[in-house]
Amino acid sequence: MHIGIVGLGLIGGSLALDWRRGGHRITGVSRSETTIAIAGERGVIDQGGTAVSLLAGCDVVVLCVPLDRLVPMAAAVCPHLQPDAILTDVGSVKAPLVEAIMPLWSGFIGGHPMAGTAEQGIQAAQSQLFRQRPYVLTPTAQTQPQQLAQLQTLVEELGAQVLLCDPHVHDRAVAWISHLPIWVSAALLGAVRQESDPEIIALAQQLVSSGWRDTTRVGGGNPELGVCLAHYNREHLLRGLYQYRQELDQVIAMIEQQDMTALTTYLQKSQRTRTQFEDRHQTQEQDNNHI
Amino acid sequence: MHIGIVGLGLIGGSLALDWRRGGHRITGVSRSETTIAIAGERGVIDQGGTAVSLLAGCDVVVLCVPLDRLVPMAAAVCPHLQPDAILTDVGSVKAPLVEAIMPLWSGFIGGHPMAGTAEQGIQAAQSQLFRQRPYVLTPTAQTQPQQLAQLQTLVEELGAQVLLCDPHVHDRAVAWISHLPIWVSAALLGAVRQESDPEIIALAQQLVSSGWRDTTRVGGGNPELGVCLAHYNREHLLRGLYQYRQELDQVIAMIEQQDMTALTTYLQKSQRTRTQFEDRHQTQEQDNNHI
Repeated sequence: MHIGIVGLGLIGGSLALDWRRGGHRITGVSRSETTIAIAGERGVIDQGGTAVSLLAGCDVVVLCVPLDRLVPMAAAVCPHLQPDAILTDVGSVKAPLVEAIMPLWSGFIGGHPMAGTAEQGIQAAQSQLFRQRPYVLTPTAQTQPQQLAQLQTLVEELGAQVLLCDPHVHDRAVAWISHLPIWVSAALLGAVRQESDPEIIALAQQLVSSGWRDTTRVGGGNPELGVCLAHYNREHLLRGLYQYRQELDQVIAMIEQQDMTALTTYLQKSQRTRTQFEDRHQTQEQDNNHI
Repeated sequence: MHIGIVGLGLIGGSLALDWRRGGHRITGVSRSETTIAIAGERGVIDQGGTAVSLLAGCDVVVLCVPLDRLVPMAAAVCPHLQPDAILTDVGSVKAPLVEAIMPLWSGFIGGHPMAGTAEQGIQAAQSQLFRQRPYVLTPTAQTQPQQLAQLQTLVEELGAQVLLCDPHVHDRAVAWISHLPIWVSAALLGAVRQESDPEIIALAQQLVSSGWRDTTRVGGGNPELGVCLAHYNREHLLRGLYQYRQELDQVIAMIEQQDMTALTTYLQKSQRTRTQFEDRHQTQEQDNNHI
């Protein structure tokens, strides 16, 4: 197949690398001539450039630009696509994008590969990044079954585990496990920042260990990404934050009342919940380690 | 020196191992004959048993039992100590223990080694566990300088970085970076548990990745430890939780109002705060990795 990749960062570059090695022809589009040159040298693409008109002959086009640039990029790309082309994306929020892009291109199918590294850019592109990782596709009632089947086959060629779901179901699920943790973690950094005694701050900085480091990691991450997710997944994130505030109030009340039995029960439930959310993932991690 | 270790778990066993290798004579006391036998076989102690009367000839006695057993254990040990013996502990909260034990033994100096592994028990004891890790000592106005100097020298022999501070300062600092994160993290698990749609839960469980895993780790940890810390460090923990609730309300308001500029500033500050709390630690981690 002839696959167009728009945006050659970590995700776009890694998709291109695997599909090209699998025998597909890859056209890359980037804002940056330098990125195109590097992608060519690294064997990530067959040809490319900065013009979206290069996508004219593609069977499938994957938009791999940041969340807030996806809709304008889709609008720019659509006039150049052949009529039966499949358009997809890799954004972390799905419903608002599907709703905005479907009217522009009925052959749009939302996508979200759950993979990444701390690195960014074409230099970080790597093969098998998606292997044994979840890759969500969000078809709608308007999606043509044969187009979905074609895209699903391509994703399976990456070694990824395809999950099909409604865009809203996706957004509610990732609000819990991906977007809510960012703000829970950032508020912890915010609270500690309010400590006004320099002696306490200095000692706290000397005593931090893995518990602090882990709990604050996502809250101390890329600000633009966190804000973008809060913007596009606002409704579900707020629902999660309201529920979280209730839980926090309950924790505070139990500690105020020194109800050690209730606190023990609460942490025992937390331990069980974490186990339920980890088993599957840890198996995947172990599988990944065996590659 | 003749050092008594009461409680031969990960911390007690690891202290004994390093000090014995450094030429000190170690007497171990444990509730369990089996633990004493294993500690003897592994070369962790010179002699030991289940009776606290074995500590009669010790220059220094270190209480390494769980937080809620420290005061009764101190009361049981004191009648057997020689008059100038130094008594110390390894509990994660200091002020209430110092206040309870100082009247029993004026030569008590609170201690808190900031080290550990996910493992527990005498089998997990390892040498150099405390190397380049912070080790807090909390002397008071009643502490005799030569006793503090003796204990400090012993701790430095472990390769640890000794930090001297007031017990209350210690408790306020660890409330922020160690005890507050437990409940912030547990409330996240609690919130997700309230999702009533099985389709959302099933998908969320399939999509969890490192962000979720890191943010929920300490909230899904040992329930007894978390509750014990909430009990002994209640006042400072509540102070942290009230501040945290204010931050959370601020985050919710910014998202409700779609104030993207304020949200960006908030996450930028979070990123800077995390850097300020990480630099020192990461250097230590890197150093540890080079051992």
